[in-house]
Amino acid sequence: NKLIQFSLFPITSYLRQKKDTKKIIHSIKVGISLVLISLLYFVDPLYEQVGDNAIWAIMTVVVTFEFSAGATLGKGLNRGMGTILGGGLGCIAAVLAQNVGGGIGNSIIIGTSVFIFGTIATYCRLFPSVKKRYDYGVMIFILTFNLVVVSGVRIQDQKVWKIASERLLTIVMGFVVCICVSFLVFPLWASDELHDSTVSRFQHLANALQGCLEEYVKFATEKENKKAGASFTVCKSLLDSKSKDEMLANFAKWEPWHGKFGFFYPWEKYLKIGEVLRELAAIILALGGCLQASTTPMELASVCQTVQLESCEAIGSRIVWTLQELGDSMNQMRKGEAEPQISAKLKAARAELSLVIATSKIAAIENIDALAVASFVFLLKKVVDKVEEL
Amino acid sequence: NKLIQFSLFPITSYLRQKKDTKKIIHSIKVGISLVLISLLYFVDPLYEQVGDNAIWAIMTVVVTFEFSAGATLGKGLNRGMGTILGGGLGCIAAVLAQNVGGGIGNSIIIGTSVFIFGTIATYCRLFPSVKKRYDYGVMIFILTFNLVVVSGVRIQDQKVWKIASERLLTIVMGFVVCICVSFLVFPLWASDELHDSTVSRFQHLANALQGCLEEYVKFATEKENKKAGASFTVCKSLLDSKSKDEMLANFAKWEPWHGKFGFFYPWEKYLKIGEVLRELAAIILALGGCLQASTTPMELASVCQTVQLESCEAIGSRIVWTLQELGDSMNQMRKGEAEPQISAKLKAARAELSLVIATSKIAAIENIDALAVASFVFLLKKVVDKVEEL
Repeated sequence: NKLIQFSLFPITSYLRQKKDTKKIIHSIKVGISLVLISLLYFVDPLYEQVGDNAIWAIMTVVVTFEFSAGATLGKGLNRGMGTILGGGLGCIAAVLAQNVGGGIGNSIIIGTSVFIFGTIATYCRLFPSVKKRYDYGVMIFILTFNLVVVSGVRIQDQKVWKIASERLLTIVMGFVVCICVSFLVFPLWASDELHDSTVSRFQHLANALQGCLEEYVKFATEKENKKAGASFTVCKSLLDSKSKDEMLANFAKWEPWHGKFGFFYPWEKYLKIGEVLRELAAIILALGGCLQASTTPMELASVCQTVQLESCEAIGSRIVWTLQELGDSMNQMRKGEAEPQISAKLKAARAELSLVIATSKIAAIENIDALAVASFVFLLKKVVDKVEEL
Repeated sequence: NKLIQFSLFPITSYLRQKKDTKKIIHSIKVGISLVLISLLYFVDPLYEQVGDNAIWAIMTVVVTFEFSAGATLGKGLNRGMGTILGGGLGCIAAVLAQNVGGGIGNSIIIGTSVFIFGTIATYCRLFPSVKKRYDYGVMIFILTFNLVVVSGVRIQDQKVWKIASERLLTIVMGFVVCICVSFLVFPLWASDELHDSTVSRFQHLANALQGCLEEYVKFATEKENKKAGASFTVCKSLLDSKSKDEMLANFAKWEPWHGKFGFFYPWEKYLKIGEVLRELAAIILALGGCLQASTTPMELASVCQTVQLESCEAIGSRIVWTLQELGDSMNQMRKGEAEPQISAKLKAARAELSLVIATSKIAAIENIDALAVASFVFLLKKVVDKVEEL
C-alpha cells in the first residue's frame, strides 16, 4: 500500500499546478485514510483485536473527513462527544430498565426513554446556536443512545459495556487516522481560506470600482455606448458570501495554532470586515446601476462637462488605492504603519468630493441624466464613508 | 408504545398554538419514528428475522429524517442509491479479488480499489452540481463500497451477498418508516415554506418602503431627527437569503404532488423572483441610506419644499400597493386578473416620477442634502424599474 501511495506522488505534483489542486489533494488524502484504516482488516493481529467493530472505524473516516482541517477536527470531536454521552446515558438507561421491570415493563421503559431523548435532542438540534456548531454531535448522540439502549433489550449488562467501549475505541482509531492525515499531509486550513478570500475581496472591490470609474469616463468622453457588467458579477457574488464566511470562521475556530495565526485569533473581526465589504459591494453595485441608467451618451456628455470629471476620477483612484493598500496590509498582517497615510488620503478624498459637489453646476440641468450624475457623486461619497469604516 | 403516543397528543395540540410548533412537531415525529423502528428489537418474530442488522435501520432513521418531507425523501433516496451502487460494486470487486490473487495479492487489489474509488468519489463530491443534490448519496456509496469490499477479505463469497442484501433490507425498512411518518403525520413541506417565505418577502419589502417614505416625510415636515432602522434589518436579512432559497427549492423538487402544487411545479421561478426581490431590497437599503445621510433636518426641509414631496409619497404608496398586490396574487396563486391594473399603476407612477424630476427645483440648491434628495428621487425611479421586472 505504501508503494502505491509513493508511485502516485509524481501525478500529485503534476496536478498541483492546476487550479483545483486543493480538491485533488483532498481526494487523495481521503483515499490514503481509507487505505490506512482498511489495514484493520488486512493485518491479522489488528483484526483479532478489533474484529467486526472495524466497520465503525471505516464509518468514522468516511463521515468525518471534511475538506478543511478545522472542519475535520470539529466533526471528529463532535462525534467523539456524542458517542461518549449517548453511550453513557444509553448504558445507564439500559441497566435501569433491566433492574426495574422484566419483560414487557423493560420494553416500555426503554421505548419511553427512546421517545423522550429522541424528541428532546431533535428539538435541540433546531436551535440556531446548537445547529451551527454541534448539530452533528447531537445527531450522533441520538444514534448512539438508541443503539446502546435498544441492544440492551437483547444483550446482558456486562456485554453492553464491552460493546460500547470497543466501538468507542475503533471510533477513536478512525478519528486519529483522519486527524493525522488531515493535519500532516498537505493540510488545507479553513483559516487560510477565510483569510485569502477576505484579502482578495479588497482587490475585487477595488477592481470593480476602478472599472466603474473608467467606464464612466470613457462613456462621457468617447461617447461610447458600451455597458459594463463583468466586474459587477464579482460584487453580486460577494453579496451572497455571508453564510460561507460564517461557516469558514466556524471551522477556523477549531483549528489549532499554525502558520501566522495564533491561538484565539480574532475570527469575529473577519466576519465584521466581511459585513462592511458586503455593504460596500452593494453601494458599488448601485453606482454601476447609475451608470447603466443613462441611455443617451450625448446628453450625459453635456452634463458631465459641468461636473469636474477629472477630480471625480482622482478621488475614485484614491479610494481604489486605499482598498488595495488595506488588502495588502491585511495580507501581510502588518498593522498601523500605513494607517496615518490611509486616513490622510481618505480625508483628502472627502474634502475634494465636497469641493466637487459645491462647485459643480448640477444647478443647470433638469433631466434624468443629471440625476444619475448627482447620484453617482453622492454614492461616491458613500463609498468614501464605507471605506472609512474599515 | 401506542398508548404513550396517544397520551402525548393533548400536549402536542397545546403546543401547536406556539410559534415554533413546526419544530416541536418535527421533534415528536422523530421520536415516533425511533420508537417504531425500535420495535425491530422489541418484537421477537421481527428480531429473529433481521437480527443485529437492525442497527442499520435505526441508523437510517436517525440520519435521514430531516425537517421537511422533501429533504427526507431526497436523503433517503440518496442513501438507497448509494447503498445499492456501493454494495454492488463492492461485491464485484471483492469477488474479483478473491478469484485473481490469494493472500497478499488479494489484499493489494482490494487496497488499490479502495484508494481509487475513494479518491474519485471524493473528488466528485466537490463538484457544485453533485454537491447540491447527491452529496449524501456519494458519501454512502464510498462507505458501503468500503465496508463490503473490505469485509470480503475476511468472509466468503456467498456470505458477502447475504450480508449486503440483509443490510439493504433493513435500510429499506428504516426508510419506509421515515417516509410514512414524514408524509402522513402533520407533513412539513419544503415547498410550503419556500412559497410562504417568498410571499412574505413582498410584504416585508412593501413595509420597508412604506416605512422609508413615512420617515422621509416626517423628517422633512416635522423636523424630527430620529433615524429609522427597524425595517431595514429585514431588508438586510433578505439579502442573505439566496442559499436558503436554493436549498428549499432543491428539497421542494423531491416532493410529490400535494395541496396546491402540481408535479413539475416551476420552482426555478421562485429562485428568479427571489433574485429580483434581493436586488429590490438592496435598492431600498440604498434609499434608506440616503435618508440617514442628511444630518441636519433644517436644511433638508428647505430643500424638500422645492421637491414635490406629496407626489413622491403618492408614487411610493403606489409602489407599496403594487408590491402588496403582487404578494397577494402570488399567495392565492391566481394570475392575470390584477395584471392590467398593476401595470397601469406602475406606468402612472413612472410618469409622475418624471414629472417630479422635471419640475423640481433641484436646480436651486448646492449642498449635500440636495444631492441626497436627488439620489432619493433617482433611486425611487430605480425601485419602479425593479418592480416592473417582477
